Amino acid sequence: MKVHCSKDSLLTGVNTVQKAVSSKNTLPILQSISLKAEGQKLIFTATDLEIGIRCEVPAQTEIEGTVVLPAKLFTDIVRKLPDTTISLSSQEESIHLFYYNSEILLKGYDQDEFPLLPDLLDPTIFSLPTNLFRKMIHETVFACGSEENRPVFSGLLLEIDHQNLRLIATDTHRLAYRLAEIPNPDEIKFSGIIPSKTMSEIYRLLKEDDETLAIRFNDAQVSFQFGSVHLISRLIEGQFPNYKQVIPQTCETKVYLSVRDFMESVERASLLARDSSAGASIVRLSIKDNIIHLDHTTEIGRIAEQIYMEKEGNDLNISFNSKFILDVLRVIDAEEILFELSGPQGAAVIRNIQDRNYIYLLLPVRTY
Amino acid sequence: MKVHCSKDSLLTGVNTVQKAVSSKNTLPILQSISLKAEGQKLIFTATDLEIGIRCEVPAQTEIEGTVVLPAKLFTDIVRKLPDTTISLSSQEESIHLFYYNSEILLKGYDQDEFPLLPDLLDPTIFSLPTNLFRKMIHETVFACGSEENRPVFSGLLLEIDHQNLRLIATDTHRLAYRLAEIPNPDEIKFSGIIPSKTMSEIYRLLKEDDETLAIRFNDAQVSFQFGSVHLISRLIEGQFPNYKQVIPQTCETKVYLSVRDFMESVERASLLARDSSAGASIVRLSIKDNIIHLDHTTEIGRIAEQIYMEKEGNDLNISFNSKFILDVLRVIDAEEILFELSGPQGAAVIRNIQDRNYIYLLLPVRTY
Repeated sequence: MKVHCSKDSLLTGVNTVQKAVSSKNTLPILQSISLKAEGQKLIFTATDLEIGIRCEVPAQTEIEGTVVLPAKLFTDIVRKLPDTTISLSSQEESIHLFYYNSEILLKGYDQDEFPLLPDLLDPTIFSLPTNLFRKMIHETVFACGSEENRPVFSGLLLEIDHQNLRLIATDTHRLAYRLAEIPNPDEIKFSGIIPSKTMSEIYRLLKEDDETLAIRFNDAQVSFQFGSVHLISRLIEGQFPNYKQVIPQTCETKVYLSVRDFMESVERASLLARDSSAGASIVRLSIKDNIIHLDHTTEIGRIAEQIYMEKEGNDLNISFNSKFILDVLRVIDAEEILFELSGPQGAAVIRNIQDRNYIYLLLPVRTY
Repeated sequence: MKVHCSKDSLLTGVNTVQKAVSSKNTLPILQSISLKAEGQKLIFTATDLEIGIRCEVPAQTEIEGTVVLPAKLFTDIVRKLPDTTISLSSQEESIHLFYYNSEILLKGYDQDEFPLLPDLLDPTIFSLPTNLFRKMIHETVFACGSEENRPVFSGLLLEIDHQNLRLIATDTHRLAYRLAEIPNPDEIKFSGIIPSKTMSEIYRLLKEDDETLAIRFNDAQVSFQFGSVHLISRLIEGQFPNYKQVIPQTCETKVYLSVRDFMESVERASLLARDSSAGASIVRLSIKDNIIHLDHTTEIGRIAEQIYMEKEGNDLNISFNSKFILDVLRVIDAEEILFELSGPQGAAVIRNIQDRNYIYLLLPVRTY
């Protein structure tokens, strides 16, 4: 391999694939990046066997070939390279980098040991606008659970049927649901659970000027292609909960209130509630007439917040884990929300008033 | 105490004094902030007994008084307050904060237990421009040692005599020296060792538009006053090394080279050298004709950098801890430096070519 490439392009390559490098103390080959010179491009690949990322950058190739390099050290070196054209030349498993009158030799690994990113056999392809998908991820991914409880909750359910594209995440205490309507002339159908890490990576890597995103999938894997990036991920096996069943269709109380007022009050209340024995910080809402009272007394002090709102239906007292409220208020693309409640023990729903395709469901905590 | 104060002013107060709050797990009273309403101002004070900071912000006082509050919680609450006028009202050891229709009550501590910042008895006062002092700290403080070796090395020597103001720091492996010439009509003399934490705090708190800094001192303490901030610190007892003796007056080799080229080459070389058994990352310079070669071979690879330079005197090979070179290159206010060397084992000196009042001395490492 012999290739010439700008420092910026090398940096794009290593930065794009870095999150697919295994961070666990594992085989060196999974903590490495593969560089392949082919045609007028240099192809960066990394995988931890759960997720794989490939990225192409422009380069002048003299001799095609592949090297596999230790990811962290190579990335650190690329960051410190001067802002000029870098020549890369392989020698068995090693690479030479040349710039100005200086050079670096870095020992690599046997390229045959580097795991190939699987090609999806007989994939179905679906395209959609990237900005839409990025927004959908942002509004849902935070509601995923961690791997420790059941694996299905550490992923997001992606569903395509007819004109409907849905993304749903839940950790069993709350659920975020986003629906978008998109053209689907081929009547493609898909339903799969995608690891939250994969979705967070897509969110991070998608750029405003990437116009479309192509999703390819089969029964076990899904891949996303946008710009010069190709990301492939396993699907999580298992049965995702039936979200249609859990979203309440009616409610006893409707509250219309400002996102900012609500968020700031809950943030302050949670500061005083955080030392409580429960571990989580619980906020109690007392919804009465046109005011929500947040009133907390702990050993360190007391907070009494009032938030003005419009209300339809019954007064009630209800408590929530403050994190479950703040998480959604920080990402929702609205100035006002509709908060639907069904008594102190019923599931509550937060809706975007301007956009009925977004639903956030959260379970109250029993304190009253 | 009853006082009205903007959220921004409260924020300035808590942010200014926060580094004087004890971070160790110690008496609650040392992890607190004192607030005193007096005249048309609110005075914030914190101290860990090594350093004390006082800061005044404008306020409308109705009833004068003092409260002592848990620093972390009060700071977190202030950060989350709405951007409006906050009314503070004390009730025994507690404080009520009122804003809009909401309120917070926070329990505090007995104000009599809060340590008073000492008033310097019979201090001598010296004034100097803040921008100059800030630059002097920046160029020297990094060379301090940690508290673990001898205490004198964890501080900076401040010397005033005739028209000379000097700041010197050393950890015994390197020494940073900065001289400034300033008016001293009263022929004030001072020599004291100031903790590096104190100096870092002054650097952090000094603002461009604070014009002068007043230094007050006696045998045991020093205080710095600028803007609305008053910072008081103990002096470190002990004998600072005689810096005049250690700075070489002659050299065998003079090297003129670009700060940027030198820094970038050493940064790259240190990446490959960092896995070495020495713990520190050692760079070897081979100075020959008009090129410095940095050449390293380790188990992970090899780097061969060349830096062009102008040289007077002997060729030589010499090794340094790369951190000791990078630290000074990152702060020196120059594009080119003069590197003075006296053989592979003699102390080396880095000078700012444009400003002969700055000297950085560093000891080589024996590897050749």
